[in-house]
Amino acid sequence: MIEAAGQEQSTLAERLRAGDRRALARAITLVENRAQGAPALLRELYPHTGAAAIYGFTGPPGAGKSTLIGALTKVRREAGRSVGVLSVDPSSPFTHGAVLGDRIRLSEHFLDPGVFIRSMANRGALGGLSEAALETTLLLDAAGCQEIFLETVGVGQAEIDIIDHADTVILVLMPGSGDSVQALKAGVMEIPDLIVVNKADHPLTDTLVREIRGVLALGSEQREDEWRVPIVKTVAAEGVGVQELQELLAAHREHIIERGLLEQRRRRNLRNEILALAAARIRRRLEASLAERADLGELLDAVVERRIDPACAAAQLLDEAPGG
Amino acid sequence: MIEAAGQEQSTLAERLRAGDRRALARAITLVENRAQGAPALLRELYPHTGAAAIYGFTGPPGAGKSTLIGALTKVRREAGRSVGVLSVDPSSPFTHGAVLGDRIRLSEHFLDPGVFIRSMANRGALGGLSEAALETTLLLDAAGCQEIFLETVGVGQAEIDIIDHADTVILVLMPGSGDSVQALKAGVMEIPDLIVVNKADHPLTDTLVREIRGVLALGSEQREDEWRVPIVKTVAAEGVGVQELQELLAAHREHIIERGLLEQRRRRNLRNEILALAAARIRRRLEASLAERADLGELLDAVVERRIDPACAAAQLLDEAPGG
Repeated sequence: MIEAAGQEQSTLAERLRAGDRRALARAITLVENRAQGAPALLRELYPHTGAAAIYGFTGPPGAGKSTLIGALTKVRREAGRSVGVLSVDPSSPFTHGAVLGDRIRLSEHFLDPGVFIRSMANRGALGGLSEAALETTLLLDAAGCQEIFLETVGVGQAEIDIIDHADTVILVLMPGSGDSVQALKAGVMEIPDLIVVNKADHPLTDTLVREIRGVLALGSEQREDEWRVPIVKTVAAEGVGVQELQELLAAHREHIIERGLLEQRRRRNLRNEILALAAARIRRRLEASLAERADLGELLDAVVERRIDPACAAAQLLDEAPGG
Repeated sequence: MIEAAGQEQSTLAERLRAGDRRALARAITLVENRAQGAPALLRELYPHTGAAAIYGFTGPPGAGKSTLIGALTKVRREAGRSVGVLSVDPSSPFTHGAVLGDRIRLSEHFLDPGVFIRSMANRGALGGLSEAALETTLLLDAAGCQEIFLETVGVGQAEIDIIDHADTVILVLMPGSGDSVQALKAGVMEIPDLIVVNKADHPLTDTLVREIRGVLALGSEQREDEWRVPIVKTVAAEGVGVQELQELLAAHREHIIERGLLEQRRRRNLRNEILALAAARIRRRLEASLAERADLGELLDAVVERRIDPACAAAQLLDEAPGG
């Protein structure tokens, strides 16, 4: 099928909004590759976003985030909801394109037209991955996914702002997650909206739950949203605790909608996203200038030889790079 | 004492270079507060930097990084070397201004004129903390610290680029660091130059060492620098293993100097620092514009109401903000 360039864009957006999976897959590839047509596509689709409920799952590799998302997907599908999954965790089985087999019970979802699963590896460029993740979330939303599950890896300092695209943040831990509990305790990691202790058939589960309770008790007075962070025990691979988790996710959503907090969160998140997008754009330009222009290469030489200090070099780079 | 403004700068730099601790403390406060005189001071001092050996310690909270640095400081002082310590770990006892007591054996160093200890809490602003840490490292270097120990918290994705200021990166773990090992295994955390298993009197030490060895065996062929990452067992609070660690740090330094890798690292680090400084500067300007200007506030409203998409808003912000 031959289409004119302009027409094709419009058609792609329309097909995507109609829930066409191939159109959605193609649109995501466009934004991932930062293709020429991507900005226009996003511009066209953006007014049709905002309806999806966005859940962000973070936690150390191996805690079972993918399995948990698979189990939740099953529950939501049974309730008739359409689901989008975006994994930006390089350690995730989604990312490795694995056919996940019976144990994880996700393979069935790959064939379900009501489920769309996509994963993203690190694109290297600072801010680039976050940008692509934000844009992909918008595409899933525009394509009619009613629930979007974001999977990101996080242990300690949640510098990755992908989780900031979520309305509800869930931290997934497992027995043995000592580092993450220490990070929570030390205030290095932000307290999420829900904490899941997965693989809860492990003998050390209750020890972990007690530790987490201790941490939550310390910080509970500071929480402005009047939400009591629940701890949910699950064995995701067997579906244990998943229904309870689903009910708590729904309860959190109700809580933030009722109090106007969802609107506040989204406003704050969008503000940060605009700033991050702008900063990433500038950084890309500067990086390109530094690589391409001989005079700016000499600037780096001067810094290496301790003739110009880094701050002066940064100022000079901003002055001299196009669009800097 | 009353000094003219210009003269004061020059005097402060001179006093700092002569190793005056009060001058160093004051200079750090200037860069932390982004005071007016800070850029000129750094410009003046930068040509006198580059001699210090910079070691970056990262790892989960509670692994004992501070205690280890304290013990290393003792060893280096006994060898007649001057030491600077900069902690940018919000969970560190340094950061809490603790008098660390006998157990940690650091309190003695607070009174030693050959040791300068400084800590920094998170400054909130994106990139701001890293900027202040870079600048403080330069100040310690210019003040004649021969060895600089940087302490940062890191578990998983090392998004914090403070560690990038170091010539040698040391990951400090303790028995129970399951999340960090998973992160190493999954390739989410970069392999450091040395791994310390601290609190090695714990019964699970050998299990952890075995796990780490397994991870290192996987990635060893990919290492371009021909350095075999050693695992060192320490009980820092009792000084056990510290001498061995010191010898391995020296061996790594020799290795990277001999092969010209130190120069390469520093060039790459400085390049990243220039880019980070430039991007942080731009981001601060944009943030200020978004907060102050009514028209840009309306831009955010338009995004929240799904009338303008985030990418367009970012572009508009870059076009319209002063210096954007």
